Amino acid sequence: MELLKEKILHDGIVKKGNVLKVDSFLNHCIDVKLYEEIGKEFKRLYNDCEVTKILTIEASGIGIACVTAQFFNYAPVVFAKKSKTSNIGDDFYTSEVASFTHGNTNNIIVSKSYINRNDKVLIIDDFLANGAALEGLIDIINQAGATVVGAGIVIEKGFQPGGKLLREKGVRIESLAVIKSMNDETGEIVFAN
Amino acid sequence: MELLKEKILHDGIVKKGNVLKVDSFLNHCIDVKLYEEIGKEFKRLYNDCEVTKILTIEASGIGIACVTAQFFNYAPVVFAKKSKTSNIGDDFYTSEVASFTHGNTNNIIVSKSYINRNDKVLIIDDFLANGAALEGLIDIINQAGATVVGAGIVIEKGFQPGGKLLREKGVRIESLAVIKSMNDETGEIVFAN
Repeated sequence: MELLKEKILHDGIVKKGNVLKVDSFLNHCIDVKLYEEIGKEFKRLYNDCEVTKILTIEASGIGIACVTAQFFNYAPVVFAKKSKTSNIGDDFYTSEVASFTHGNTNNIIVSKSYINRNDKVLIIDDFLANGAALEGLIDIINQAGATVVGAGIVIEKGFQPGGKLLREKGVRIESLAVIKSMNDETGEIVFAN
Repeated sequence: MELLKEKILHDGIVKKGNVLKVDSFLNHCIDVKLYEEIGKEFKRLYNDCEVTKILTIEASGIGIACVTAQFFNYAPVVFAKKSKTSNIGDDFYTSEVASFTHGNTNNIIVSKSYINRNDKVLIIDDFLANGAALEGLIDIINQAGATVVGAGIVIEKGFQPGGKLLREKGVRIESLAVIKSMNDETGEIVFAN
């Protein structure tokens, strides 16, 4: 998606430790017009998939998912919550997600009321790097017996293994910008084709 | 807002400890069409206030704020993040927020880059009860030297002190549904006029 790539080149900041800071437009301060273009692009890509639910994870995914839902005939948006306790009762699907950034493990939870076996679920998230969050969301959809339509990712770090791993498992992943490499000394960002 | 009140009466569940569960349409599973009506109503109420930024707090506020921004000429949405550490450097405004629900204290942080003294800021949040989060957001706007236009709240628990306290301090608060009382035994919900 050209507009997004231009925005990343113009406003993204490469930080040490493979961090790409895009908080001036994507995940702290939000350009909602850009979100609309992102939503339209996800709709173009998943147009014929009869999506019935959009699943994301707090916090940065929520706004993107809500605006995207406007292009998917207002499919309900469900967001997984992060929970410190694994003991959350029988009303929730839960999956363990390792955070490479924070070096710890979180449980993500989704109420059983909001995904059912007839659902065709599109996953939306801002970043894909090691794929841990995405794997957790897929695990939850599988627990519900629902269908994973695919994932719509805004920025994929192509030099980290998540995308490759999950595509090899047969998951459809559409990333609007795939970063091939970035350099925190020069600030250079190179996109994959 | 009649549509919202009907939705609360139909789908809201009163739980022990003054908890109103509205996660089937507001803050876990999301009805984005309802968010649009909420955004339109905030626009009607704050139409002539020349809002330049919308400020909210993760996680549930983000989606509401993004859809609301579509009615405010795409004013940038900034969401405050919750942080465990108070030692976050000079790049952030920070405020301490006591959580009555969890019995602890969080810091909320906003990058200094995204609110400046010329901003007229509308605060958006899903709930107002004791007002701690709202006070923290106001504190951050004041630190930035910006103007608090007011707060747009989806559901105010009128039987808790936050709304009264902050209105007495001169803050404009517009709540789309104000709950006067609720009963976890009968499930009854009574709205204020």
